Amino acid sequence: MLFRETRGYHRRWPQKGAMRTSIATVCLSGTLDQKLVAAHEAGFDGVEVFEPDLVASPRSPEAIRARAEQLGLSLDLYQPFRDFEGVGPELLEQNLRRAAAKFALMNRLGIATMLLCSNVATARSGDEQLAAVQLRQLGDVADRFGVRIAYEALAWGRFVDSYEAAARIVRLADHPRVGLCLDSFHILSKGHDPEAIETIPADSIFFVQMADAPLLSMDVLSWSRHHRLFPGEGGFDLGTFMAHLVRTGYDGPVSLEVFNDTFRQVDPLATAVEARRSLRWLEHVTALSLGSAAGGGAARMSTASLPAVAPPADVNYVELRTGELQELRRLLMQLGFRSHGEHRTKRVELWSHGAARVVIGAPDSEHVQPTVAGIGLSVRDPATALRRAKDLFASEVPRDERPGEEPLLGVRAPDGSEVFFGAEGATEPRWVSEFGIPGHDDPHLIERVDHVNLAQPWQRFDAAVLFFHSVLDLGAEASIDVAAPVGLVRSQVLRSADGILRIALNLVPSGASDDAILPQHIAFASSDVIALARGARERGFEPLDIPGNYYDDVEARYQLEPGLMEELRELNVMYDRDEDGEFLHFYTHPIGTVFLEVVERRGGYAGYGALNAPVRLAAQYEHRRVASQGAPA
Amino acid sequence: MLFRETRGYHRRWPQKGAMRTSIATVCLSGTLDQKLVAAHEAGFDGVEVFEPDLVASPRSPEAIRARAEQLGLSLDLYQPFRDFEGVGPELLEQNLRRAAAKFALMNRLGIATMLLCSNVATARSGDEQLAAVQLRQLGDVADRFGVRIAYEALAWGRFVDSYEAAARIVRLADHPRVGLCLDSFHILSKGHDPEAIETIPADSIFFVQMADAPLLSMDVLSWSRHHRLFPGEGGFDLGTFMAHLVRTGYDGPVSLEVFNDTFRQVDPLATAVEARRSLRWLEHVTALSLGSAAGGGAARMSTASLPAVAPPADVNYVELRTGELQELRRLLMQLGFRSHGEHRTKRVELWSHGAARVVIGAPDSEHVQPTVAGIGLSVRDPATALRRAKDLFASEVPRDERPGEEPLLGVRAPDGSEVFFGAEGATEPRWVSEFGIPGHDDPHLIERVDHVNLAQPWQRFDAAVLFFHSVLDLGAEASIDVAAPVGLVRSQVLRSADGILRIALNLVPSGASDDAILPQHIAFASSDVIALARGARERGFEPLDIPGNYYDDVEARYQLEPGLMEELRELNVMYDRDEDGEFLHFYTHPIGTVFLEVVERRGGYAGYGALNAPVRLAAQYEHRRVASQGAPA
Repeated sequence: MLFRETRGYHRRWPQKGAMRTSIATVCLSGTLDQKLVAAHEAGFDGVEVFEPDLVASPRSPEAIRARAEQLGLSLDLYQPFRDFEGVGPELLEQNLRRAAAKFALMNRLGIATMLLCSNVATARSGDEQLAAVQLRQLGDVADRFGVRIAYEALAWGRFVDSYEAAARIVRLADHPRVGLCLDSFHILSKGHDPEAIETIPADSIFFVQMADAPLLSMDVLSWSRHHRLFPGEGGFDLGTFMAHLVRTGYDGPVSLEVFNDTFRQVDPLATAVEARRSLRWLEHVTALSLGSAAGGGAARMSTASLPAVAPPADVNYVELRTGELQELRRLLMQLGFRSHGEHRTKRVELWSHGAARVVIGAPDSEHVQPTVAGIGLSVRDPATALRRAKDLFASEVPRDERPGEEPLLGVRAPDGSEVFFGAEGATEPRWVSEFGIPGHDDPHLIERVDHVNLAQPWQRFDAAVLFFHSVLDLGAEASIDVAAPVGLVRSQVLRSADGILRIALNLVPSGASDDAILPQHIAFASSDVIALARGARERGFEPLDIPGNYYDDVEARYQLEPGLMEELRELNVMYDRDEDGEFLHFYTHPIGTVFLEVVERRGGYAGYGALNAPVRLAAQYEHRRVASQGAPA
Repeated sequence: MLFRETRGYHRRWPQKGAMRTSIATVCLSGTLDQKLVAAHEAGFDGVEVFEPDLVASPRSPEAIRARAEQLGLSLDLYQPFRDFEGVGPELLEQNLRRAAAKFALMNRLGIATMLLCSNVATARSGDEQLAAVQLRQLGDVADRFGVRIAYEALAWGRFVDSYEAAARIVRLADHPRVGLCLDSFHILSKGHDPEAIETIPADSIFFVQMADAPLLSMDVLSWSRHHRLFPGEGGFDLGTFMAHLVRTGYDGPVSLEVFNDTFRQVDPLATAVEARRSLRWLEHVTALSLGSAAGGGAARMSTASLPAVAPPADVNYVELRTGELQELRRLLMQLGFRSHGEHRTKRVELWSHGAARVVIGAPDSEHVQPTVAGIGLSVRDPATALRRAKDLFASEVPRDERPGEEPLLGVRAPDGSEVFFGAEGATEPRWVSEFGIPGHDDPHLIERVDHVNLAQPWQRFDAAVLFFHSVLDLGAEASIDVAAPVGLVRSQVLRSADGILRIALNLVPSGASDDAILPQHIAFASSDVIALARGARERGFEPLDIPGNYYDDVEARYQLEPGLMEELRELNVMYDRDEDGEFLHFYTHPIGTVFLEVVERRGGYAGYGALNAPVRLAAQYEHRRVASQGAPA
């Protein structure tokens, strides 16, 4: 189930984008051959061949070249070659010999460009003139083999650690076979301003490598080797970076070089599709950054923006699948939801309260996992939203619609859940009438869906961030760690600017066993959570039991008025407060791996009660422990 | 199988050590109740109650107190309370009220000491006089409740970030209820010299927290929150730290406060035993650091050293368990091993070549996993070696010995594998005669076991480092990351000073699927690996196939003489070189999850061919892929 997004996936995009796309083999797991196939399937134009992948391959260089040709992939770069320049005469001699051997190998592979990283180990001098002279000598050797050198400043280079220094050396070398490789990580990780890229002549930029990264504070080498991300998954401003590059007139490959411990472990095709999506998104933000006034290469790029989508007007519905439907029905009823009965043709039911709609059904072959099986969104123009998603390589979900039923257009998220687009407009969506029982207009205490919490397997967390960020144009908030009784849960919220759509992604610890509660739920927004909780109790609702110690702590922390404090305790409602307002919320017991929450935001409170999350997780853990002990042996 | 070390584990150590031991509940996973039970089972004297664990507990403070009493645990510390000092008058008022609520809670819990961390957020002034005055006010409140305050400088404190500053403030506060908490992490992570601890009066040191950590270069907050380790698992010199402390006369609790993402996820009893072992080891290194000339508290500590063990004279044998015994026998025969037949009473066989002995058998209920089921060591005094291991809370492995059989004393490592101690002395151990076929003294090309590679589940990697470091007194080398086709493998070698015993621990990536090769093997030391490989080939041996690209790379890299180069290629022997010498080695195909290696060290080469490891891992992956494709569908 993990990789449903790519299940039965075939290359379906013959069109070439505005960029020539490439990916380093080090981004993908498996053998070199498996990597080439994955890059091909995901529609890349070319690959960078990482030396260890070649060395470990049982295929000869000629066979690798033939395989790439057969797959329609160009071999764009050979890497890495290191520790060349700034050395003494004897080592230089050795290095030139070593390079000649690699150039000969590149001839056999049919690769025209070699990456040369700035010296991190053997350089004895930072004299740029000396480095330039030595690079010129290397250029002469390269000339004999008809290849060229792309010189790149590593962030931890011994002497050369900025692209501006590398550019000066290349200018001094003044050799047609010697140019630059620019890598966004090495530039942005050091906080260097990429603006001066515009001063570099396009014909001396031989190659460009793109990587995003979370904004960490750690040594740059470990950060680079373990935590890089694909564009759109981290914190770097890559649209601006690319805009500077495009303004030079550069039109060579834009390649992904992403060292990441997770990507090294997971299905290479899933990673390749995620990678290809990230470059499509990068084209888009580059086009936005360039604006409409651009000319030349910039004009080409400016056509690359994605179809614009307005933020969703509302969450149309959330779909839950569970084997314990009866239990779920009872909970919804207790929370004041009313049933609309079964769908005319599909085996699902609709329940609503205010504008919060929950579609429920038993698991089937198409909806096995996750338990939150789908989210429906009301958008201005469903067809455009779908076009944008497909433009970002999302798989469309086939849907069987009968005449007279409202068309819903859907795509599959990386974790296999579905996102459907329906037309906004009427107070009640048209598809509601496809269920047996018409709309209710009783007074209601729940207004709408406040947020949806999706548990993500560790393999697909970053991919999910990119998916929701790029497909739905949601902004990513900073992630936080929440201590569960078993393991830390990383949580990151993606939300529309107006806060109408909020999706919290939770990273389940890689070692999570069945003891861990998957933090997957729907939170409903209420205008009066106390009144709702009281009414629910009258209908037999038993909320998740929150410990008295928690309320003692709230009392010590906030000095609330005794009446409210009493109500919170009595109804198991939790409390949080920040400068902007207050947050009251309560939880249902988990049904299998899903549960429900009701929240009330007072004032401008925009959080999610993060301080309360560990208490809630512990209460769920305790509930489950007691339940399993109570069960017959 | 993962936690076999603690299977059927019962508290067996009524004796109290030289230190009063304590552990923070945050080190262990589960509910507060589960944590208390684990701390009790592992023989701790007390626990620190971490506030979120209390807040999330469904038990009342009184019930928690009663439970701890019932388990014979003292509740030593309540934490954390933060952001108290250096604030303006209004906030001070609030903070004093908040503290009074916590003191009242501590009275209910029966906890006498509260940890107060230096202000990281709300302090407006770094004036130490002001902080001291405010702490004195807090001391007055504490006095009303009969409790005391242990003030600790956090490494990222806003103004107070060193223990010396904290000590100055406590001295200025001059209040019997106000003292210090010293935390090894906050002191050593900043590179502060712990020597000045000796200038602090013992009666103002209220509490001590110990944590080790790997020597990382990252922001200290993340380092502290995610990567702390138990003493003996990381890179801090904690023996020296403790010696300074003991010289003050301090005799309060020594408590473990270790925030670690792994420990948060795994079985709390396994973690608690590991934690208790780390404190026993800490007593030992503290005693060593104090030397024999110590008086007072130091005298008490100096009795705490573990039984001294000399480095093992040799690897006595390695025991392999596999369902594919026939295949393993053929491999051993091809490598020139000779069978000694079956054991007189046990269902295992012995094979030897030179002094390398391999005991093989089919899996049984006691030896299911891992495939390298045990290591036998020749030691000067097996009884003392066992006593040391048991003193470090290792479980003894019961062994059924018949009259006349050599007694072997064994303990279980954290991954469930066994370590047995036999007497050194004779060229051939006496137990060899318990097998059917007597010794061989043919000429041999294999000398002995060079090293053993044990795959460790991610849950037990740090525990395994501590186990081998403390029980066998092995030194830990720096760990390296090796890129496998699927995931990075972290590898760390533990070795005796003379290099006779080398155990490489490999951390299998948490997401490793069946596709990943578990890097578990025995390497034999040969005097002539080329001759051995040639002889093996004549006996039908097919080595692991190493790609031609690898040899092209070796050729470009080292310019070896053509004859040797030809032999390496022909025999699939790999090559490495460093300043001290050369390394030639080859591998067998994996049998299930185990394989064999033969190595030749020329000159002083002390490594393991790390550069070749990714190529070997890829070749094994390829071998397995091809084998599984060739199998009938």
